[in-house]
Amino acid sequence: MSNPGARPIGIFDSGVGGLTVARKIHDRLPDEPFIYLGDTARVPYGNKSPATVQRYSENIARLLCDNGAKAIVVACNTASAYAREYLRDTLDVPVLSVIEPAAEDAVRTTRQGSIGVIGTLGTVKSGAYERAVAEYDPSIRVVSRACPLFVPLAEEGWTEGDIARQIARRYLDGFAETDIDVLILGCTHYPLLAPVITEVIEEVTGRKIAVLDSAEATSRRLAAVLSEQSLVCPTTAVAPSRRFWVTDISDSYVELCSRFFQAPVKDIVHVDL
Amino acid sequence: MSNPGARPIGIFDSGVGGLTVARKIHDRLPDEPFIYLGDTARVPYGNKSPATVQRYSENIARLLCDNGAKAIVVACNTASAYAREYLRDTLDVPVLSVIEPAAEDAVRTTRQGSIGVIGTLGTVKSGAYERAVAEYDPSIRVVSRACPLFVPLAEEGWTEGDIARQIARRYLDGFAETDIDVLILGCTHYPLLAPVITEVIEEVTGRKIAVLDSAEATSRRLAAVLSEQSLVCPTTAVAPSRRFWVTDISDSYVELCSRFFQAPVKDIVHVDL
Repeated sequence: MSNPGARPIGIFDSGVGGLTVARKIHDRLPDEPFIYLGDTARVPYGNKSPATVQRYSENIARLLCDNGAKAIVVACNTASAYAREYLRDTLDVPVLSVIEPAAEDAVRTTRQGSIGVIGTLGTVKSGAYERAVAEYDPSIRVVSRACPLFVPLAEEGWTEGDIARQIARRYLDGFAETDIDVLILGCTHYPLLAPVITEVIEEVTGRKIAVLDSAEATSRRLAAVLSEQSLVCPTTAVAPSRRFWVTDISDSYVELCSRFFQAPVKDIVHVDL
Repeated sequence: MSNPGARPIGIFDSGVGGLTVARKIHDRLPDEPFIYLGDTARVPYGNKSPATVQRYSENIARLLCDNGAKAIVVACNTASAYAREYLRDTLDVPVLSVIEPAAEDAVRTTRQGSIGVIGTLGTVKSGAYERAVAEYDPSIRVVSRACPLFVPLAEEGWTEGDIARQIARRYLDGFAETDIDVLILGCTHYPLLAPVITEVIEEVTGRKIAVLDSAEATSRRLAAVLSEQSLVCPTTAVAPSRRFWVTDISDSYVELCSRFFQAPVKDIVHVDL
């Protein structure tokens, strides 16, 4: 291709959650073409080992690069935690995770010097947010907590009401004894539960908490990287191509994907890995 | 091997849930050696397509047969629904599912001629219980309902209390308008939630409901098949070998497996597929 900027952004996640990140990228960079790959045949990554997640991530990133990706966005917290550094060392295109941008945002936002993180078991065990925050400011405290039921809650669409609130209460109660004033949603599914999470975390701590969605920070970072590396797509009269690929397809995906992307997602293509 | 009965039973599931079936087999057939394989790298099957589940199941069943399995127990409802017939046609050892034995039990138990089934999205969509029940008695009504949050609830260990009860209530409410008197737990994770499920289904319907665990029925059927086909293991002075294999291993598995097997599971071995 004559202009490298015309190549697509490659975005991947273990499943549909990363579509919340794809959405923010779509909003901030409306002229950019992208390929989104959801590894729905092997979802979820959150309870898998680092070696397995690394292998799957490399697999996918190579497929996206083979299809012309000019940058890779690891739109999955577990894959970001376990595979981002490895991908950055291996691939010759920029690799962005959802963790560093969110950590940077959180460090800038906190007044108390204390940040809460919620995510999958894999993300929390990896300690990736702790490390990312420490790189910006090692004096800041990070308290993290795994919330495994939030993902199926978001996928069921039970994002409000008593059940969601009680589950949030059970997971977030432990933050009562902390002095956090920022909470990072360290899983791409969680933005769907943001209203309940915000309500409960403020109730539990008795103060205002800035609830940060990493998709927002990641899309901002991506815009900066594309610009720095002269990879911005030239504006054309034609709408940019947006491809949605999954490794396993099922009837319910059109509806599920549309919910996470907040717009109708059609033409989901099945790719074999 | 001189005596085919001395070969192990091969039991598999997408993850740890099938250990509730392995447990019942262990209780009923204490002299039988077995290999349990949990496909934890690709768990869950419940939201995957029939073709993918069939491919995974064949993969695993062949591995077990290569390791001497004298019979295969598909201890996963989704795999039973999508792959059992295919495996039965392909392999030259007996293949048992968890669906037919439970369906037979339910048909024998119901007085109203009406049976409820709960399971994963995949199991419910497959219509496998409807077909299995119809084979025994086509006049019996079957009402089924997917309950996706029950699996993470069981894995979190939140098997009692308000949250479990409210989620059960939301899923089981629809059975109020039916005349079921039997409810099949059509997912190997659900036995851990049996007390809450029983309490709620009786509250919702206002009558006594027989809640059937397919592990019990399956182990009984297995005992019969081994005996009919002269595959019973000769009793020896040495305790039978029980092997636990997983396709992905993580720190939390020892505890998780022990909870589902209701006894300490040590020496979990990682196998690559």
